[in-house]
Amino acid sequence: MPSPLRNGDAAQPRLPSHAVPPRLHHHYPPFHTTVSEHKIRRLNLLVLLLRLAAFCFSLAAAVFTAANSNSSRSSTSSWLNFDSFRRLVFATNAIVAIYSLLEMCASIREILHGTTLLPEPMQLWFDFAHDQLFAYLALAAGAAGATAARGLSGCSAEKPAASFCVQAYISVALGLAGFGFLALSALVSGFRVASYVLTGSRFPLY
Amino acid sequence: MPSPLRNGDAAQPRLPSHAVPPRLHHHYPPFHTTVSEHKIRRLNLLVLLLRLAAFCFSLAAAVFTAANSNSSRSSTSSWLNFDSFRRLVFATNAIVAIYSLLEMCASIREILHGTTLLPEPMQLWFDFAHDQLFAYLALAAGAAGATAARGLSGCSAEKPAASFCVQAYISVALGLAGFGFLALSALVSGFRVASYVLTGSRFPLY
Repeated sequence: MPSPLRNGDAAQPRLPSHAVPPRLHHHYPPFHTTVSEHKIRRLNLLVLLLRLAAFCFSLAAAVFTAANSNSSRSSTSSWLNFDSFRRLVFATNAIVAIYSLLEMCASIREILHGTTLLPEPMQLWFDFAHDQLFAYLALAAGAAGATAARGLSGCSAEKPAASFCVQAYISVALGLAGFGFLALSALVSGFRVASYVLTGSRFPLY
Repeated sequence: MPSPLRNGDAAQPRLPSHAVPPRLHHHYPPFHTTVSEHKIRRLNLLVLLLRLAAFCFSLAAAVFTAANSNSSRSSTSSWLNFDSFRRLVFATNAIVAIYSLLEMCASIREILHGTTLLPEPMQLWFDFAHDQLFAYLALAAGAAGATAARGLSGCSAEKPAASFCVQAYISVALGLAGFGFLALSALVSGFRVASYVLTGSRFPLY
């Protein structure tokens, strides 16, 4: 991701020297004008909802995987496989859930107080980069987890699958749903960053 | 991805009714002014390079996986596993390579002739959506392929791994490198879309 980051950073010091047209906001201090405040609030609510959904699904996936552990010690080798599968899915979804929770707190704080935790451009870049990163992480864990679950002994297609297999499939699916919401919020926060870099406001379409 | 799409689409018809400031280009016909033409050309070259790299890596991964097939029929069950692994990695990387090749052709055509194949906004949205989609696809295939390769019989950590295992690991790694370049080009084309939606030009920072 280095080139767009550098792009944006290089552009921001240059912008104030331009004759800024009246439609664009001033670049730094006035946080947002009252005209666009309503739209920014709605965008923030959308991001908050997406993060809430991502949090719920990844928390559910982590809990489901953790609860799956004690019912499946059929043989030693299957247990070893199962354990590495469980570690992978649990750890990733726990990380994603914690990240979503922290971002939700930051989002709620911003909606209530109207200011961001970090300075605004840093906060926007932070949100976008981490959304994208954790979305990739969740997808990779989901794909790897699905493959690993398929390879668990006792989960073959011939006989009806054991209950721990069904639970494993469900937890992978929950994790992938969490990935979906995280990817959507990465899209929204990417749009916010680009609009901040390009126009100096987070939501200039009004 | 529906909400940002709808955002952009709703915004475009509204923009011309505004008093467009002189810094922003006209919205539709003048494709780009001569001032920004140089920068757009450089951005297009960057996208072309990223796509070329993604094409090379995913083609190499597909060829490597295909060439890996005939040397590894050790037992029937391992062959079955190996076959499904091979199908997965080969198919995904072939799809990504074909997509990158087509996009490279479109990119070269645009650099030479200065016009896009589809109408410009459609082309930008098409590029971004497909870059993002195929990046997710390549990542998922890479993660699933890595897990599957680890589970192939004969690829255990105790004894030195068989040569077909090493080849499998290499092809997965090549596919993941292709994913990296595709993700970078998704970032660049996402920036292009956002800048087109927000300002009516693809590269307003000059």
